[in-house]
Amino acid sequence: MPLPEKALIAQIRRLAKPPMRRQSGTVGPVRNAVLTGIGDDCAVLRLLPRHEFLVTTDFTLEGIHFRRDWHPPESVGHRCLARGLSDIAAMGGEPVAAFLSLALPRDLPQSWVARFLGGLISLAKKNGITLAGGDTAESPDGILADIMVVGTSPKGKSVLRSGARPGDRVFVSGRLGGSAAAVLRMRTKPKKKLNPRDFSRHFYPEPRIEVGRALREKGLASAMIDTSDGLSTDLGHLCQESGVGAEIDAALIPRARIEKSAREVDLDLALHGGEDYELLFTVPPGKRVPSQLAGVALTHIGQITRGKKVFLCTGPNLARELEPKGWEHFRGR
Amino acid sequence: MPLPEKALIAQIRRLAKPPMRRQSGTVGPVRNAVLTGIGDDCAVLRLLPRHEFLVTTDFTLEGIHFRRDWHPPESVGHRCLARGLSDIAAMGGEPVAAFLSLALPRDLPQSWVARFLGGLISLAKKNGITLAGGDTAESPDGILADIMVVGTSPKGKSVLRSGARPGDRVFVSGRLGGSAAAVLRMRTKPKKKLNPRDFSRHFYPEPRIEVGRALREKGLASAMIDTSDGLSTDLGHLCQESGVGAEIDAALIPRARIEKSAREVDLDLALHGGEDYELLFTVPPGKRVPSQLAGVALTHIGQITRGKKVFLCTGPNLARELEPKGWEHFRGR
Repeated sequence: MPLPEKALIAQIRRLAKPPMRRQSGTVGPVRNAVLTGIGDDCAVLRLLPRHEFLVTTDFTLEGIHFRRDWHPPESVGHRCLARGLSDIAAMGGEPVAAFLSLALPRDLPQSWVARFLGGLISLAKKNGITLAGGDTAESPDGILADIMVVGTSPKGKSVLRSGARPGDRVFVSGRLGGSAAAVLRMRTKPKKKLNPRDFSRHFYPEPRIEVGRALREKGLASAMIDTSDGLSTDLGHLCQESGVGAEIDAALIPRARIEKSAREVDLDLALHGGEDYELLFTVPPGKRVPSQLAGVALTHIGQITRGKKVFLCTGPNLARELEPKGWEHFRGR
Repeated sequence: MPLPEKALIAQIRRLAKPPMRRQSGTVGPVRNAVLTGIGDDCAVLRLLPRHEFLVTTDFTLEGIHFRRDWHPPESVGHRCLARGLSDIAAMGGEPVAAFLSLALPRDLPQSWVARFLGGLISLAKKNGITLAGGDTAESPDGILADIMVVGTSPKGKSVLRSGARPGDRVFVSGRLGGSAAAVLRMRTKPKKKLNPRDFSRHFYPEPRIEVGRALREKGLASAMIDTSDGLSTDLGHLCQESGVGAEIDAALIPRARIEKSAREVDLDLALHGGEDYELLFTVPPGKRVPSQLAGVALTHIGQITRGKKVFLCTGPNLARELEPKGWEHFRGR
């Protein structure tokens, strides 16, 4: 049984720790932007001058985004926050604070909640952000979480999805399909527990905050999105918002290696598997892109075109339209 | 069956309408603070200089916060947003934008969703705010909504819960217990449909944005909270955050009148019934409080004391400790 609401809020407040108040007159780091956190009707945030606010929100629902028998509670908490942080990364932003709405069924063991919060708050601290508020409720069925992450970037510098132009090159960070490979394995062998360390991109994905920020600071990315739904779907979103098309080369797509083997995942997983939380971005002609940023590889996989469609080149003079076949939510529980 | 995710987002985007871009160099109204709304990884917000950001988040869960057989969809949408707006009002803030996370069961009729969004967006427009983003998902069971509202107030001027001092007077806006009276009626006669117009404080509560703003502008309120959980619980919260106690007078509590009758609700409903979304605030000695603000009555109901407890005076020299018996969520469905 989870703690009563008041005790749960007290627990979260203790774990989240009250943020330091910024000294008046000094310009503190962004993480001191939270003036009033948990314990009031609203959180109160302040920003550096000449900055704009970024806001994103993402559900994490039992049976849809995770399964209690597959995912350790720490992983669920980590992934819950990672989803929001990754959206901030995809704008080239700096995360500031998170807000967690959490509804719990009456029969949930208190230890599950403590481990979930542990995973979430550990990732928050790693990224220098404060858990600054949220809501708690009893859930009619299953664990329901909604994470909101607030970030910041210098005015007018946020990298939008809509900035890609014909002739821009398409890049992706890291490797794709690793998260979907874990899901596939759990689906085909539901009884066999995976070792989260062998599939860390699924269980403990690191949002690419530093990569996104560096791309924004260097003025390299004309448009950016994170690969939360899968390359085919997310490239489609980017092209739609920019009013362009794209051609990507199947042979260039960096595929994840699973477990300790050197074997790469199938192309389909790299194309359509979601939840890798890598960055997909476009770069105007003439700008040099380093082979890696913040220790993460950047790979050139194609270019933006005048059309409205996305094509996949599979060989010399061989191309087919790439339908968005984004990652499907977990079905059943 | 609800629309597929992509079509649902398109519908919400259409209803929410893209916000106007603020002309560069001019200082537009707050409602033009949303530069990039639905359609990117994050929404991008800008604020007037020398303002701070307020953030609040609130669940609306089927079977916990509403019942589909009791509440018209428009009312569910209205109440969902009203919860967040009321938190902004309780800081003396100005609402700017809302973010809606919405998870829907597969068998939900599309008309329900359209009417829910209609109720929510109608209240958003009335308050001059933009629905600027959110998330959609399939729900494993029941309708799940989480609303986030972002607001603003001049730096250092937000009215916190923690500012009450011994000797301050306690006030409440409007009348209390009207919402709980509707819940009680529906519980005792579950088959009989209520006319929402007879119980508008329950079905279509107006968040007290103007009252909260006026109290902040006039520098009247030393501390403030909204009565979402019920007077006894919310006064307890305010006292706890301020490190004080309070005495309130049972005879002074403004009780709601239900339906067209002149009959007032029972004292217990006014003391413990939640979801009235009135403002409960404290005023330092010497400051004059008008009998109404923005057309809403303000009633003096007691004072802040040095102790840590809250007492209810029920007659000359008669007082008992007022336990927080906040509003219980709906049980079952």
